[in-house]
Amino acid sequence: MTEQELQHKIDMKTKPVGSLGKLEKIAFQIGKIQKTLSPELHNPTMIIYAGDHGLTDEGVSSFPKEVTFQMVMNFLQGGASICVFCKHNGLTLKVADAGVDYDFDENLDLIHAKIAHGTKNIMKEPAMSIEICKKAMDKGREIVQNECKNGCNIIGFGEMGIGNTSSASLLMNKYTGISIEDCTGQGTGHTSDGLKHKLNILKQASEKYNVSDPIEILATYGGLEIAMMCGSMLEAKKQGMVILIDGFICTSALIAGYKMDPTILDNAIFCHSSEENGHKRMLEYLKADPLLAIGMRLGEGSGAAVAFPIIKSAVDFLNEMSSFEAAGVSTNE
Amino acid sequence: MTEQELQHKIDMKTKPVGSLGKLEKIAFQIGKIQKTLSPELHNPTMIIYAGDHGLTDEGVSSFPKEVTFQMVMNFLQGGASICVFCKHNGLTLKVADAGVDYDFDENLDLIHAKIAHGTKNIMKEPAMSIEICKKAMDKGREIVQNECKNGCNIIGFGEMGIGNTSSASLLMNKYTGISIEDCTGQGTGHTSDGLKHKLNILKQASEKYNVSDPIEILATYGGLEIAMMCGSMLEAKKQGMVILIDGFICTSALIAGYKMDPTILDNAIFCHSSEENGHKRMLEYLKADPLLAIGMRLGEGSGAAVAFPIIKSAVDFLNEMSSFEAAGVSTNE
Repeated sequence: MTEQELQHKIDMKTKPVGSLGKLEKIAFQIGKIQKTLSPELHNPTMIIYAGDHGLTDEGVSSFPKEVTFQMVMNFLQGGASICVFCKHNGLTLKVADAGVDYDFDENLDLIHAKIAHGTKNIMKEPAMSIEICKKAMDKGREIVQNECKNGCNIIGFGEMGIGNTSSASLLMNKYTGISIEDCTGQGTGHTSDGLKHKLNILKQASEKYNVSDPIEILATYGGLEIAMMCGSMLEAKKQGMVILIDGFICTSALIAGYKMDPTILDNAIFCHSSEENGHKRMLEYLKADPLLAIGMRLGEGSGAAVAFPIIKSAVDFLNEMSSFEAAGVSTNE
Repeated sequence: MTEQELQHKIDMKTKPVGSLGKLEKIAFQIGKIQKTLSPELHNPTMIIYAGDHGLTDEGVSSFPKEVTFQMVMNFLQGGASICVFCKHNGLTLKVADAGVDYDFDENLDLIHAKIAHGTKNIMKEPAMSIEICKKAMDKGREIVQNECKNGCNIIGFGEMGIGNTSSASLLMNKYTGISIEDCTGQGTGHTSDGLKHKLNILKQASEKYNVSDPIEILATYGGLEIAMMCGSMLEAKKQGMVILIDGFICTSALIAGYKMDPTILDNAIFCHSSEENGHKRMLEYLKADPLLAIGMRLGEGSGAAVAFPIIKSAVDFLNEMSSFEAAGVSTNE
């Protein structure tokens, strides 16, 4: 299959050329990823990685740290937004404990992937050692290999970790060179005083370490869930899967992956533009054109799960719409 | 149910307040329309109205007129984009012949609602008499009454009619006072010469009649499919249904309805912002905040059908997400 053949198939559908907008671009991208004129989406899966952050000791989040494990329990009970969206939109939801500071019952239907009980407080020492960070990434690769064996060829990633917008802001700052101010937002719901405090802490944290190697940056400022997600994304690219990118934290993991393998962007679909300050700048940095901009800023993979039916629509029109010729419809040429 | 109770239910879900963005607004709107904290969407239906336009004699469209009936056949055979999107997104699709200049076999699975074999050429006489226009609107009301009896409480409208972007531009111009230049776009795919010609014709047509009564404007410049859609929308509002608004032509029918019953906006969800020049200005005029902006400009109701799963997601989260209290998750207060 050539790219010309794929574009021709899209253009010959019974519609004015280009009139399905971003759906046409997504259909083209997925056809190209799967190297076929008739792409298929199999076993779409969403994996949430959860982890705690030592930096919460500094009061960077408006929610208490125990919300991380409480929300993991909420995921398992089906009560969180991502559960509702995955259920109705045909995505299988899995939850991985990457590094929650809580000992889950081993009988829970979790992916038990705990690397540590949360990261270290970045104000005192790097969040992770290089070794721990690599271990998290390797586990992420392994999780995606398993999904791939299950026949999944389109995968989204969500996250839960009180304090992880702080981690994502620092990663963004270090990877892109954009100022801490432009990388920092209200997270899950700060007051202006809370935001001022967060900004002050993040500035100090940013200045504290002079790191430039992509893995060193990820280890120093990342979360266990972000590192695991990054490893998963790199593996998903390697396996030729479509990667659904959610909001701010998910995109920070992608930027880390992009620094290690720039071709990862070929497989990434940017599902939405988050209201979290900084996400739009991240998307600009990656020259990404997000699908939705509907004011969401929830995380958990929720933006990707809400966007998924539209991605499915792109594949559906490519496979099922008639051509002008087949339908006996006159063209404008 | 009070509006406060509805907002409280939304705010107590396990998510930061407001973090589901437009989904929260849609959940609130649908709860308000249905006067319940637990709204439900029943038998979602999309009706396409098809009609021909006498103005095509003046060369305002880049596609030949016979495409209207050819596309109706394509709808019935399931090959058009709207068929694919409705099928996968759980919408029942129906097609109504409002005024196609073609005699369909009476055994076809159409809503046989033909009022006339197309409109008159506006450059010579009004598109419809007041009587014909009212007949089309009444038929539209009747069609929605039938859907309502079938238990449908959420309905979208699509259209097919070569030349109907011209009609919609003229309606927009007359109802809003916005200049013909700002109301006119490329339609289904004009060259710049074609657009210049279209603009020239529309300017003459606009100047030809001095009309101000809402129904007189609709009769003079409308299409049979637009008038029928307008009647349908007014009835849907009367019946307390949720109304899915698609792109440029659908919104022109809504503006006509809005001039007859301004409360129609309470029930309207603006599904997307079309790339057709003029649609953004229409939306501004109505102070509408569209859900999607993904570069679509196809008509047929396609933008509404693609957006429908997101509207469903809004209702789903309201009904199925846990509250902080029920899930045992700490809040940030």
